[in-house]
Amino acid sequence: MKLTLGELASSVDGTVIGDKDFVITGVSEIHDGRVGTITFLGNPLYNKYVLNTKADAIFVNNKSLLNGKYGIVVSNPQLAMAVTLELFFCQKKVVPSISPIANISKSAVIGEDVTVGAGAFIGHDVIIGDRSEIGINAFIGDKASLGVDCRVYPNCSIYEKVVIGNNTKINSGTVIGCDGFGYATADNVHKKIPQIGSVSIGNDVEIGSNCTIDRATMGHTRIGDMTKIDNLVHIAHNVTIGKGCLLTAGFAIAGSSKVGDYCTFAGQVGIGPHLKIGNNSIVAAKAGVTKSLAGGKIYAGFPAREIKDYNRKQALISLIGKMRKDLDFLIRTKSES
Amino acid sequence: MKLTLGELASSVDGTVIGDKDFVITGVSEIHDGRVGTITFLGNPLYNKYVLNTKADAIFVNNKSLLNGKYGIVVSNPQLAMAVTLELFFCQKKVVPSISPIANISKSAVIGEDVTVGAGAFIGHDVIIGDRSEIGINAFIGDKASLGVDCRVYPNCSIYEKVVIGNNTKINSGTVIGCDGFGYATADNVHKKIPQIGSVSIGNDVEIGSNCTIDRATMGHTRIGDMTKIDNLVHIAHNVTIGKGCLLTAGFAIAGSSKVGDYCTFAGQVGIGPHLKIGNNSIVAAKAGVTKSLAGGKIYAGFPAREIKDYNRKQALISLIGKMRKDLDFLIRTKSES
Amino acid sequence: MKLTLGELASSVDGTVIGDKDFVITGVSEIHDGRVGTITFLGNPLYNKYVLNTKADAIFVNNKSLLNGKYGIVVSNPQLAMAVTLELFFCQKKVVPSISPIANISKSAVIGEDVTVGAGAFIGHDVIIGDRSEIGINAFIGDKASLGVDCRVYPNCSIYEKVVIGNNTKINSGTVIGCDGFGYATADNVHKKIPQIGSVSIGNDVEIGSNCTIDRATMGHTRIGDMTKIDNLVHIAHNVTIGKGCLLTAGFAIAGSSKVGDYCTFAGQVGIGPHLKIGNNSIVAAKAGVTKSLAGGKIYAGFPAREIKDYNRKQALISLIGKMRKDLDFLIRTKSES
Repeated sequence: MKLTLGELASSVDGTVIGDKDFVITGVSEIHDGRVGTITFLGNPLYNKYVLNTKADAIFVNNKSLLNGKYGIVVSNPQLAMAVTLELFFCQKKVVPSISPIANISKSAVIGEDVTVGAGAFIGHDVIIGDRSEIGINAFIGDKASLGVDCRVYPNCSIYEKVVIGNNTKINSGTVIGCDGFGYATADNVHKKIPQIGSVSIGNDVEIGSNCTIDRATMGHTRIGDMTKIDNLVHIAHNVTIGKGCLLTAGFAIAGSSKVGDYCTFAGQVGIGPHLKIGNNSIVAAKAGVTKSLAGGKIYAGFPAREIKDYNRKQALISLIGKMRKDLDFLIRTKSES
Repeated sequence: MKLTLGELASSVDGTVIGDKDFVITGVSEIHDGRVGTITFLGNPLYNKYVLNTKADAIFVNNKSLLNGKYGIVVSNPQLAMAVTLELFFCQKKVVPSISPIANISKSAVIGEDVTVGAGAFIGHDVIIGDRSEIGINAFIGDKASLGVDCRVYPNCSIYEKVVIGNNTKINSGTVIGCDGFGYATADNVHKKIPQIGSVSIGNDVEIGSNCTIDRATMGHTRIGDMTKIDNLVHIAHNVTIGKGCLLTAGFAIAGSSKVGDYCTFAGQVGIGPHLKIGNNSIVAAKAGVTKSLAGGKIYAGFPAREIKDYNRKQALISLIGKMRKDLDFLIRTKSES
Repeated sequence: MKLTLGELASSVDGTVIGDKDFVITGVSEIHDGRVGTITFLGNPLYNKYVLNTKADAIFVNNKSLLNGKYGIVVSNPQLAMAVTLELFFCQKKVVPSISPIANISKSAVIGEDVTVGAGAFIGHDVIIGDRSEIGINAFIGDKASLGVDCRVYPNCSIYEKVVIGNNTKINSGTVIGCDGFGYATADNVHKKIPQIGSVSIGNDVEIGSNCTIDRATMGHTRIGDMTKIDNLVHIAHNVTIGKGCLLTAGFAIAGSSKVGDYCTFAGQVGIGPHLKIGNNSIVAAKAGVTKSLAGGKIYAGFPAREIKDYNRKQALISLIGKMRKDLDFLIRTKSES
């Protein structure tokens, strides 16, 4: 595929710097640039590669970054790159087909142009929407439903009655709808609390690999529209995650907590049970949230607090050595006086 | 199904407050209560929902919480709810059946009323006890054995020679019996230490989704009776976990450590290698255990210590700002004097 | 199998202490020793078991540890044990066979003496090297390639175009080549950045169970030769891991970071994005790396720093209580003066 800088610029609402007719044949990374390609500058750490990259053009948000190279100025270079990658590598849609060795219950309702891989299992009364794709050896339990344009990758396990919206992708090894971790303990006996609820996942959600999302004790564990979930994320029973959240790898949230919309959790963050996390919260990596957060701010540390308080605490800790010296001076000069 | 409050009370050894003949038709959550149902109060955070819940009755441990509503007073409302959920939603036992497209070795010994799902694999000399259920596409390696009434969910992998007791449940994606992480390093070469041991899991154990339990180098990695394991938990080679423990999501324990009975580990806790954790230890979320713990206490932090010491340390850290001010005052007034 | 101490010593380049003709019939752990076996002392914690172990001989690195027992003195007892375990329990090679109910694309190139398990799927244009083994219900996506002597355990998912070297083992539930977690966000819309790169894994790599390794946005996520990866490890898109590294369970590394050779990361360590970790770095358990590390040292804490600085900081924190008392004394005596 070939596109001129001018054509690319019109696709991303940008301004060409250099020759509008220059032909771009692909994309590359700036530190590993290839002749004929366009790359992007989305992180100042990589500005140092501009001069020597072999890529012939760069998406930038400021013309001055180009140092004389060709480029396209846009408000969001990363977004422009996402669009360009789509232009060059639009996924060829799989020709829909249902494997003769998939195991599909007769009572399942399968939409049009659905793909089901070899060894996949689709239980009683399952509903699969149009154009959805169920991967090799995936398991879809009885009465689960998926909307249109979904993709369940190989070796996923979706337990019974789980409800999944439209255009939602679930990567391999992820398990949705397993029992919540609920026991009532008396006299050293852990009696299981039956987990009779389910899981409800919205539209345009993307879930990484080897995640676990528990069914609710009663009611539903809920994931809102357009929330994106990385790998190895755990979501406990009766949790609600709002829309547009980003949950990074290793994130875990305990039972019955409620997360608002557009929250971002960095890697290995943990959230305790029965908490409320307000809209637009950002929680830094490895933080542990033990109390509800109002939202709209950045939080860090364990127990998690506003990052300005976290930083102040860290700064105070760094003062201890000097304080010890000051104290020693006072004590010494006191005894001298 | 319909039960009167009186019938329910006799099932849970409780006392009816209100009309003993009032009919309950189901269960609901207190903050999302439905007419005709009974709910429960197990956490004071939810007391505020009593007045407005649409549920018609509540399990409480103190009559005064009811605020005039109908209810049943019991010593453990959560336990009463677990019993009630069972009454209303007793799992209909699957009609046992062995899929014609399961792959079962001729030398496997399959008990009575066993269920084996499509695509499941059962290796040489495997033993499956009566009424056990092997899920879709699960893998049971050669010479593994499961007791009676077990359930292995879809897409689990149980490696060869693993021994599993009675009435034990293993959720999807969990891997049991993979090699321990053992290498002998010399001259920058990591030589694998053959892991010739296995894993032994007791009775009434429940294991969540996407857990990993390594086989021992020699001997057995052991999980005691009635221990309950959440999702994404890692148990390394040669670890022993006692009976009745609760291991919450993201818990990881390194090689050869030994955990006593009735221990509780909150989310994302880590335990180092070659440690002993005494009976009845409770370790708070995200703690990192680097030394053996005597047991019988609550521990927190990294490195983990008794929670009263942890809290004292945190309190001291919060004093630093005031101390800096006191010091500045002393220095200033000293130079003035 | 039977070997004399003399024969064993010559296999491990050691010196017999005691009767060279004493016959050893197996191996055991020192704290659970069995008559007729040899064990080893690799960790001083276990020295206390020497006197009472029922094992008849011990690999030690110092004759004095034997306390009169038979043994073999070697420079690295753990390595000697690894060799001995191989001698006694050399894995009987599976007789190669391709299951008639494996699903193998006609365009796949399958080497000699390859084993493919029941229900495994091998896509278009896949290459599988000689003597490699694809486990039960594993998924190998289109155009992926594996070298010779590889082993993919049951229920693994290897996405399209992933490249794997020779003699590399991948345990159950691991997912390689799923999309990196990359979104360009504008106006509260998370637009997916197509992940068109892949994953390249070297020779002699071992990967545990339920790990996740993301494909690169462009280019390759790379794992170097002889790197060993424990369970539940997450490696994000565009990461490079050098050769001979050890990544312990729960380790997670964010996008585009680069790890040098022979690095060791203990359990539950996290590494941020776009960082460089120098050769021979050792990072202690649960540490969080937020800045690049020069390498060649031990690091700990969050944010991770050299362990001597970490220890100094911890020591200073432990001074606070005494400092408060000193301050109170100065204030009191000041007012008295």
